[in-house]
Amino acid sequence: MAGWVTGFVDGEGCFTVPIQRNETSATGWQVQPQFVVAQGASSVDALETLQDFFGCGRINLNARHDNHREPMYRYIVRRFSDLNGVVLPFFRQHKLLTAKRDDLEKFGEVIELMKQRRHLTPNGLVEIARIVETMNHRKPARILRILRDHTPDVRDTG
Amino acid sequence: MAGWVTGFVDGEGCFTVPIQRNETSATGWQVQPQFVVAQGASSVDALETLQDFFGCGRINLNARHDNHREPMYRYIVRRFSDLNGVVLPFFRQHKLLTAKRDDLEKFGEVIELMKQRRHLTPNGLVEIARIVETMNHRKPARILRILRDHTPDVRDTG
Repeated sequence: MAGWVTGFVDGEGCFTVPIQRNETSATGWQVQPQFVVAQGASSVDALETLQDFFGCGRINLNARHDNHREPMYRYIVRRFSDLNGVVLPFFRQHKLLTAKRDDLEKFGEVIELMKQRRHLTPNGLVEIARIVETMNHRKPARILRILRDHTPDVRDTG
Repeated sequence: MAGWVTGFVDGEGCFTVPIQRNETSATGWQVQPQFVVAQGASSVDALETLQDFFGCGRINLNARHDNHREPMYRYIVRRFSDLNGVVLPFFRQHKLLTAKRDDLEKFGEVIELMKQRRHLTPNGLVEIARIVETMNHRKPARILRILRDHTPDVRDTG
């Protein structure tokens, strides 16, 4: 089953680190790493297989399914201890074979910085945002665009 | 490796049976079953892994990559003996866990009908087209739309 899980995640999995405005946090931003696998309703069994396998995470109906012919579900792991203690160790042992292995590596760097509480400081936050910017073929992160517009320090050290 | 291949194909693989106009064939149509896995250039390694694993098929640059940020490649198996003798037996032994297992089953039915040379007869062709119509959430096959427009027999026995 470990082989199937690795292959399926190589195809359908996503390691992302949304960084969103959160006025209640010290920095004004919240870092929320997550491991997500999306499937149509007819393949929700496969998501349950992942949930059983990892023994953590939730399956949600995904609201954004406008372009799909069937409702979309997603398996999502957000709890830090599950990401750090279950998901990351698994994929370090069972290597991904697509470009997602790079995302996994960067995801691991972010988790490591968060273990050091770096995401709670402005400098650490920028460090994390710079890693995130290079993941998943993303366009520049919103936080970096905003910081670049308003703080010359961040722009100049880029 | 069999586990990874099964999981990866559950995510990214596609079993399709294009039926296209071909004036040189007896029926005027050509049935061309194929097993395809597409990836961006950064993950072409994974396609080479599939090619090595199955020991058949080709990797092509996919011309239709307008919506993608990187060139798209596809691993494609088209040779009938490879589909019948390598691909199908593998996935019958290593069960897919998503809705693609149904497509694989129907793909196998088409291969079986082709082994019986049914695709070379008008009735067999319609039988195959009806199976294909239910695969991959497809819209009605072009051949069936055309036949329905022109031959009441086909429409009425549907």
